[in-house]
Amino acid sequence: MEQLLFWCDLIGIVVFAFTGVLAAGHKQMDLFGAVVLACVTATGGGTTRDMILNVPVFWLADSYYLWIAAATGVISFYLIRYLQVPMRLLMIADAAGLAVFVVIGTQKVLSLGHTPAIAIVMGVITGTFGGLIRDVLCGDIPLLLRREIYATAALSGAAALVILDDIQGLPGEVVVAIAILVTLGIRLAALRWNLSAPIARIRPET
Amino acid sequence: MEQLLFWCDLIGIVVFAFTGVLAAGHKQMDLFGAVVLACVTATGGGTTRDMILNVPVFWLADSYYLWIAAATGVISFYLIRYLQVPMRLLMIADAAGLAVFVVIGTQKVLSLGHTPAIAIVMGVITGTFGGLIRDVLCGDIPLLLRREIYATAALSGAAALVILDDIQGLPGEVVVAIAILVTLGIRLAALRWNLSAPIARIRPET
Amino acid sequence: MEQLLFWCDLIGIVVFAFTGVLAAGHKQMDLFGAVVLACVTATGGGTTRDMILNVPVFWLADSYYLWIAAATGVISFYLIRYLQVPMRLLMIADAAGLAVFVVIGTQKVLSLGHTPAIAIVMGVITGTFGGLIRDVLCGDIPLLLRREIYATAALSGAAALVILDDIQGLPGEVVVAIAILVTLGIRLAALRWNLSAPIARIRPET
Repeated sequence: MEQLLFWCDLIGIVVFAFTGVLAAGHKQMDLFGAVVLACVTATGGGTTRDMILNVPVFWLADSYYLWIAAATGVISFYLIRYLQVPMRLLMIADAAGLAVFVVIGTQKVLSLGHTPAIAIVMGVITGTFGGLIRDVLCGDIPLLLRREIYATAALSGAAALVILDDIQGLPGEVVVAIAILVTLGIRLAALRWNLSAPIARIRPET
Repeated sequence: MEQLLFWCDLIGIVVFAFTGVLAAGHKQMDLFGAVVLACVTATGGGTTRDMILNVPVFWLADSYYLWIAAATGVISFYLIRYLQVPMRLLMIADAAGLAVFVVIGTQKVLSLGHTPAIAIVMGVITGTFGGLIRDVLCGDIPLLLRREIYATAALSGAAALVILDDIQGLPGEVVVAIAILVTLGIRLAALRWNLSAPIARIRPET
Repeated sequence: MEQLLFWCDLIGIVVFAFTGVLAAGHKQMDLFGAVVLACVTATGGGTTRDMILNVPVFWLADSYYLWIAAATGVISFYLIRYLQVPMRLLMIADAAGLAVFVVIGTQKVLSLGHTPAIAIVMGVITGTFGGLIRDVLCGDIPLLLRREIYATAALSGAAALVILDDIQGLPGEVVVAIAILVTLGIRLAALRWNLSAPIARIRPET
């Protein structure tokens, strides 16, 4: 179980760091700007969560998170010059990062003894705020807030974890795996069939 | 007194959540984006205050704040499709939200034993940072920083509270009521007569 | 040594507050918007550092930091109307602010007993996040992420401090002075000769 979460976490860090570098590429930032954006994207969600919860920020104790994010940043910086990254693959990877971060975040907050509602909110923050900060720094309106089933997928995955966690006798690995699949499934389905939630409309003045 | 502050707080949450949904409507975000923006706008100021003060974030203990913000978000999302909201009414509501949040924030920080100066700064942050984060997420320059008597109203209300709080024998309710009226009065007067503070000008290069 | 750091800190506050007012001038904000931006720019880096480290935010105990930032804000607001500020001078002042904040931040985190890697990261955050928040609030992509040797200079100065700090018998003043000169030198050299780090490029789809 520990092992499983560890690897999931690693995948999330690498994938989100990579999306940071891609965003930096679109804005023609330089190498160090790209590495900063990689680190902020990869760690922003968990950092926000820990700061709100008033617990030690996770990468202060385990600084290898930062090293991995920074290393991914440098490698991707040169990779995207020569390797064409299919948009499709990137969106799938991003969905995977979202899924694991939401589940890890929700899990961590539950284990700290908070209520299920707080755990769900914090899981969504863990999964989505890194990308949100990335988009704000790039001058874009965050993907999280736009017309994509992004917050919905995160919310569903976090809720699934909280509900399943309450069922006696279900092994932790199964709970985590199902919650990850729920998030991933909803997000990928939205991408595949171009699903979208209702859009906000304002009644025009007459 | 407790009762009074409780209801003020509630009004502030609902009003700011509503302004978040309206902003989401202008940017054509989807339902969940709008709800996220509603929650961030309604709780952002108090969250920033508590994180800077290193005290438990207020909605971790009383998660009903989040529920109210989220419920307001969902209801407003559908409301603004059918009901035309007069801009005038919205600005008045926003001024009311600002006034109560500034006063509640200043009060809370005073009661934690901080200096009057810090209490004023924190009151202003409580009242204004939710809207500031909303505007940043929407890609706009924050209303707080633009040509409106917004920070000025917040500052005056917080200062009024700190000064009145020092006067012996004045009941707490009166202090709170006056401070709210000061903030509200200045902001509404600015809206009514289009007042504005001096604008920053840079001497052009010759 | 205490004395030296105190004066450096003061210079950093004044210089960064001034850059905040200049940014406010470019966006035609009003007096209070400019003062808010001055305070946020001057204190944002250290505030972010202290919030991540979960230590008391520095200006809560010593509120004179805020007073200086606010006073600089008001004075600069009127100054830039009449006095033409050479861009060159401003960039040099900004480099000086960056240098002292990076070094003070790194020093503080080292003295709290964190690892050198964390101290370097926190030094960079101290020096750069005030300006980053300023740029985000103005709706610009942060200078830190763009094509300037900015993060590089900060990183080098923080690394220099950490390395020199480890050498026995080197007086603290010398360590601090060298680290400041490293940051300042790299940043000024980049400005003078228009140096730039490699730029992120994305392989176009074929």
